[in-house]
Amino acid sequence: MIGKKIHNFAQTLWGFNRSITGEGVRQTLEAIKELIPELEIRSIPSGKQVFDWQIPKEWKVREAYIICPEGKKICDFSKNNLHLVGYSQPFKGSISLDKLNEHLHSLPEKPDAIPYVTSYYGDSWGFCIEESKRRVLKEGIYSVVIDTELFDGFLNYGELILEGERKEEIFLSTYICHPSMANNELSGPTVTTFLAKWISSRARKYSYRIIFIPETIGSIAYLSQNLENLKKRVFSGFNVSCVGDNRAYSFLPSRNGNTISDKVAKHVLRNFDERYIEYTWLDRGSDERQYCSPGVDLPIASIMRSKFGTYEEYHTSLDNLIDVVTPEGLDGGYWALRRAIEVLEKDCRYMVNTLCEPMLGKRNLMSNISKLGTNVKTKQILDFITFCDGENSILDIANIIDVPFWELSESIDVLEEMKLIQKVEIENN
Amino acid sequence: MIGKKIHNFAQTLWGFNRSITGEGVRQTLEAIKELIPELEIRSIPSGKQVFDWQIPKEWKVREAYIICPEGKKICDFSKNNLHLVGYSQPFKGSISLDKLNEHLHSLPEKPDAIPYVTSYYGDSWGFCIEESKRRVLKEGIYSVVIDTELFDGFLNYGELILEGERKEEIFLSTYICHPSMANNELSGPTVTTFLAKWISSRARKYSYRIIFIPETIGSIAYLSQNLENLKKRVFSGFNVSCVGDNRAYSFLPSRNGNTISDKVAKHVLRNFDERYIEYTWLDRGSDERQYCSPGVDLPIASIMRSKFGTYEEYHTSLDNLIDVVTPEGLDGGYWALRRAIEVLEKDCRYMVNTLCEPMLGKRNLMSNISKLGTNVKTKQILDFITFCDGENSILDIANIIDVPFWELSESIDVLEEMKLIQKVEIENN
Amino acid sequence: MIGKKIHNFAQTLWGFNRSITGEGVRQTLEAIKELIPELEIRSIPSGKQVFDWQIPKEWKVREAYIICPEGKKICDFSKNNLHLVGYSQPFKGSISLDKLNEHLHSLPEKPDAIPYVTSYYGDSWGFCIEESKRRVLKEGIYSVVIDTELFDGFLNYGELILEGERKEEIFLSTYICHPSMANNELSGPTVTTFLAKWISSRARKYSYRIIFIPETIGSIAYLSQNLENLKKRVFSGFNVSCVGDNRAYSFLPSRNGNTISDKVAKHVLRNFDERYIEYTWLDRGSDERQYCSPGVDLPIASIMRSKFGTYEEYHTSLDNLIDVVTPEGLDGGYWALRRAIEVLEKDCRYMVNTLCEPMLGKRNLMSNISKLGTNVKTKQILDFITFCDGENSILDIANIIDVPFWELSESIDVLEEMKLIQKVEIENN
Repeated sequence: MIGKKIHNFAQTLWGFNRSITGEGVRQTLEAIKELIPELEIRSIPSGKQVFDWQIPKEWKVREAYIICPEGKKICDFSKNNLHLVGYSQPFKGSISLDKLNEHLHSLPEKPDAIPYVTSYYGDSWGFCIEESKRRVLKEGIYSVVIDTELFDGFLNYGELILEGERKEEIFLSTYICHPSMANNELSGPTVTTFLAKWISSRARKYSYRIIFIPETIGSIAYLSQNLENLKKRVFSGFNVSCVGDNRAYSFLPSRNGNTISDKVAKHVLRNFDERYIEYTWLDRGSDERQYCSPGVDLPIASIMRSKFGTYEEYHTSLDNLIDVVTPEGLDGGYWALRRAIEVLEKDCRYMVNTLCEPMLGKRNLMSNISKLGTNVKTKQILDFITFCDGENSILDIANIIDVPFWELSESIDVLEEMKLIQKVEIENN
Repeated sequence: MIGKKIHNFAQTLWGFNRSITGEGVRQTLEAIKELIPELEIRSIPSGKQVFDWQIPKEWKVREAYIICPEGKKICDFSKNNLHLVGYSQPFKGSISLDKLNEHLHSLPEKPDAIPYVTSYYGDSWGFCIEESKRRVLKEGIYSVVIDTELFDGFLNYGELILEGERKEEIFLSTYICHPSMANNELSGPTVTTFLAKWISSRARKYSYRIIFIPETIGSIAYLSQNLENLKKRVFSGFNVSCVGDNRAYSFLPSRNGNTISDKVAKHVLRNFDERYIEYTWLDRGSDERQYCSPGVDLPIASIMRSKFGTYEEYHTSLDNLIDVVTPEGLDGGYWALRRAIEVLEKDCRYMVNTLCEPMLGKRNLMSNISKLGTNVKTKQILDFITFCDGENSILDIANIIDVPFWELSESIDVLEEMKLIQKVEIENN
Repeated sequence: MIGKKIHNFAQTLWGFNRSITGEGVRQTLEAIKELIPELEIRSIPSGKQVFDWQIPKEWKVREAYIICPEGKKICDFSKNNLHLVGYSQPFKGSISLDKLNEHLHSLPEKPDAIPYVTSYYGDSWGFCIEESKRRVLKEGIYSVVIDTELFDGFLNYGELILEGERKEEIFLSTYICHPSMANNELSGPTVTTFLAKWISSRARKYSYRIIFIPETIGSIAYLSQNLENLKKRVFSGFNVSCVGDNRAYSFLPSRNGNTISDKVAKHVLRNFDERYIEYTWLDRGSDERQYCSPGVDLPIASIMRSKFGTYEEYHTSLDNLIDVVTPEGLDGGYWALRRAIEVLEKDCRYMVNTLCEPMLGKRNLMSNISKLGTNVKTKQILDFITFCDGENSILDIANIIDVPFWELSESIDVLEEMKLIQKVEIENN
């Protein structure tokens, strides 16, 4: 089960201090590059304008913690990088509990969770702490140490281009800015890494563009530098996020919901789990917000397990690799995306080569004795052929006859070999 | 509450003997003109051919009543103009109860109601009486006095043209032919009068054509004289009827149900009362029958409270200003129509001015600290912006994100001022 | 009731040994020709290639039976032609029960039914027997006599062309290859015979092409010889099968489900029985498989009673003229198809001749006294007229106002006579 390998890889990446910039991002990208050496690690300097945004300063953390009046060290960044609010300014000083409380974040309704808080574009600092630990803090003077630095550096991301027979691209995007959390988001970059390994190992009809970026600012920056090429080439793609738990399959459409990516995603998910959840564009929240924005309009949909924002461990330390993300969960996420890519690679239109039904009997495709009850496979073949009118694609027919695309493949190969059907050129875009 | 003022005005108009022609119509129009002096009162002579119809003779009633054998006066027109069948021929004579009964109309299932009956195009006379009173009439000779006159006169109606920045018109039509009844129909002309007052008092993008006519013959006559102009200019409009009670909101579509008027009406009503009733074209019954007839095809829909024909007091003396039509009911009818007009006036398409999402943080449109839970207003703004692709109108977006059009207005003004979005010219028709 | 006559005719045809070729087919066609003398009986020689298929040899049966060890004759073809597997090779010999069992077909779950089995394109022989009788067969030697012959002969079918005012054709196809079974399939050819009698006896707008063929190979052969003409002329048609029982009405669409035949069939069936069953193209199984195949694409739908494959007596000796097919059942099948043909003949578009509603009162089409409650017929007339815009056909309007097409006819004649509406030329195909 490939999910086990992906889970192991996620454990390797667990402790790096990922954010939208910094050393943790580079460590993560280097680890991914070990598995897919074709990955290019790129950088954009702080201050660069990207559409309505600006690349922020790079953030470095040396250490961060609080010393209680009784001398105990709490909120130690070296124990869990979620303790420090992302992009905290440096601060050193002794302050009262009242004053300290203005900088603490906790979740009363989840007393054992450290929340995930960031302040990328503010000028502040803060710590995140379990509500249960916060409640027992005593009056007194607390020593705060935040040894961070914000400086003109770089935003880093990874880009992998895999050429195929055709220039049209399938685009995968995932993000590497979330610190120690599992479903949202070590599942995305780890599953994408193993998808990339598989794609790079096989012959491809289409070209692939796979990026590992910080969320929001990363996709905006990438779009600002590659928009023309993306609009010209990308005919389908997926934002890969929240693909690691075992509790649900979910779909989030592109803005208008009518792209080939939407169609493929829904076909795959319906055939993986007919109770899969269909969200709407109003439930968006990841980089699809940029990819499908007006004027950008890339055909990007999302195939997920439990969607961001919908599960109780979301954006807390409880979103871990033990209780939430499992090898089985990652396996399902991997295969759903892989099936989607396989469908995109193989889909085309066929035209039947004879008028009227072909005679299957003389080709040993059905019993010559006709009695009550029909052979299921024969029915499937005849159902497939009856819709091979040069207009319906395999995917259309798979939807009409309600069979997974990948179950039709074997029959199609036989029919093509027997020259009962022939391909009609399909144009994407 | 404007409903209170409208209710008062309806009381003023209550006693006039409205019919499709005559003094009561002119009295009603004069009273409306006092509130909207721009109103022109027009007349068409009896006998004029209007499409398949002819303007009828003018009808005048001096007095009408019955004297019972025991000397009691009943069915006295001066007490309630519903007692006399509309367009009754003159008659004076003494007749038996049997003979009289052939001319009496009552409702066995509503013993205390005087029904509303007309005979515009017949040569007959009759009285309408409460079933409870009819039951106790004794055998004997009844003296009948109907001092009416049918003569070559005029059909009168009121027309108000309010020019706007653009020549395209919004058309309102209501009818002034129903005698002393409230929802059907003093609500229509009184609500329309107050809408006209409001429209004439403000700057307008569109021009307005507002008419107060007798039902059926009035709309046919008006169409026969103005068809070319109406077809060229009217891009939306409403037939205003039954807008005074407090029990329901109702919608009746145009013939094909696909005009801007239908779309606006449904948006307004869904946001006023999600249980509003959607009728179909088969339930039509007022002047929309003419406005949407084949070859006329004006974009006219109906926004109503309880629709004609659907409530038990309909077309009887029970449809009054106490139990049926209330200030609150009129207020709701007024505001539903006013909102519809506001939507028509303000609707347009916007295009977002940046590629990818704009950065709201630097504009103080959202908190710079991102944590669990999103600001509702921020979500609404981002939802609005994501659909500002130059194709969706505000109304489209309001429908997609399920927010009343008028709740979006404030945000749109802010976004336009910040130059985050800009108008795209929208063409009506 | 015409169903009684059809039932009698079915009894006449009952015993002929119908198959895809042979004497029983010719006997059946001759009997039909007695009722519709214009029928042409045609033949295609064995061995002829028809698309992907070949006309098979002709099959003749002289006698066939089995003698049990105790001397009893069973499975006697002369008692019931279902006993012999269709197209059995000749065989004469004595064999053990074990060996015999390899050639016997029975239905364990229907112990008293002789199943219907064919082996048109194999080289085998077999008998069909009631499971109850098979169970008591004793060990021993069985004498098998199958005196059949397969030789180069002909495939026969009947063709009836009835010219109408226009060259566009309505196409009816039914099959005459099933031996002694009733719903599937003596109902099809007998109902079609009586439809043909009725069609030939009346004036016709359209031309008709009606064929009586063996299933599958017959329709393929007919298409291979007439494809160009069929594609040019046939604008609607029905495959007539399973129209004889009394238990349901059923609809099976054309491949894409969007032809005039589909629309008419659904209108008729909804108005015959609102609980009629709508199957999909995936449930197909008769000659519609050929008529709607890619590249053939004729507009053929199916109106049925209980569909083939869905009732328990299907393809067994239990499908008889007593328990399954009844005069009432055949009557319903006949009238559903006849109504469909009447709709096709009469459907056209009308345009109302006046702008606005016509005045019905002056034409005595409604009472001149308007009171509570509307005359149902007047409402139907006004509903019809309001949709007479030159775009909607009568069928469209009948669907919108939910009235059977044939109930509108009388009103339409009156309206046309009064010159209130006029025909707009409608072009089929």
